[in-house]
Amino acid sequence: MSRPPGRKQDSHKISRELFVLTYGALVAQLCKDYEKDEDVNSCLDKMGYGIGIRLIDDFLAHSDVKRCRSYSETADMIAQVAFKMYLGVTPSVNCSSAAGNEFSLILDKNPLVDFVEELPVERASLCYCNLLCGVIRGALEMVHLAAEVTFLQDRLKGDAVTEIGITFLRRAEDKKAKKK
Amino acid sequence: MSRPPGRKQDSHKISRELFVLTYGALVAQLCKDYEKDEDVNSCLDKMGYGIGIRLIDDFLAHSDVKRCRSYSETADMIAQVAFKMYLGVTPSVNCSSAAGNEFSLILDKNPLVDFVEELPVERASLCYCNLLCGVIRGALEMVHLAAEVTFLQDRLKGDAVTEIGITFLRRAEDKKAKKK
Repeated sequence: MSRPPGRKQDSHKISRELFVLTYGALVAQLCKDYEKDEDVNSCLDKMGYGIGIRLIDDFLAHSDVKRCRSYSETADMIAQVAFKMYLGVTPSVNCSSAAGNEFSLILDKNPLVDFVEELPVERASLCYCNLLCGVIRGALEMVHLAAEVTFLQDRLKGDAVTEIGITFLRRAEDKKAKKK
Repeated sequence: MSRPPGRKQDSHKISRELFVLTYGALVAQLCKDYEKDEDVNSCLDKMGYGIGIRLIDDFLAHSDVKRCRSYSETADMIAQVAFKMYLGVTPSVNCSSAAGNEFSLILDKNPLVDFVEELPVERASLCYCNLLCGVIRGALEMVHLAAEVTFLQDRLKGDAVTEIGITFLRRAEDKKAKKK
């Protein structure tokens, strides 16, 4: 693949650690607020969604990306430009369905858990980084792409890698066009 | 002043916007959790303290800073190296006491409030960025410097600039030495 487009300005760059620790404080607060892991996960996803629908403007303004012509290009863009820009890492991308609408972002190293050793026993179902799923879902929605985004594997839960699954959902227009 | 020491590696650099929006989500959650602004402020300060006592290791490891020999040098270091590294901005520093232990960090632009237009009327006493005070206090404590850190002015509250006041407290040993 060609080199991903660079960021126009570097003045907005910061060190990642303050973000990672602040995110940890947010998750800890939600764990105080909600007893059930599912509620924390859902809250993180909702918060992420709210962030994603605002972050997309920043992304489009500061990256030189062109319109993606396929789900595959979109997945590559998320991994190679957005993750690099916002988290300083580049996941690898796998297409995991014959239909070409399911993708995996695979992170050998997840920067968001830099300071997390392991999940407490009583929080075994916590999707610690679920905010990211919401961010991706929200940002995609703003460019008219409906998607389901979930963690499929998580190193914090003993998996070998961290894997985020993105399933692009058929758009209403596509379905209509097909019916015709 | 001489050029502040650079950061050894740039691989940990990320774009600021995701952090700023995540911080906003954290403050919003605390505002849901606590009715009184004072409780939100205090919680942000405590969280910041917890972050500061961990962040100092990262700071010392990734910046080439040498031991500060005065409160004045320490204040400059916070403004010119730490703020630059973690928030991408460099506040100006004023010494505001004849005793030489009170300093102001003055931010013409506060990146943490990039997406905040104004505080809601019912949240007029909120110190939106109070996490920063806690971070500074916690980090200083880990290098054996006790300090009080508070917002003195806040553009979100209509002030012309945002000003963080740092008052270094005399150490117990200093006092003992003086008595002798």
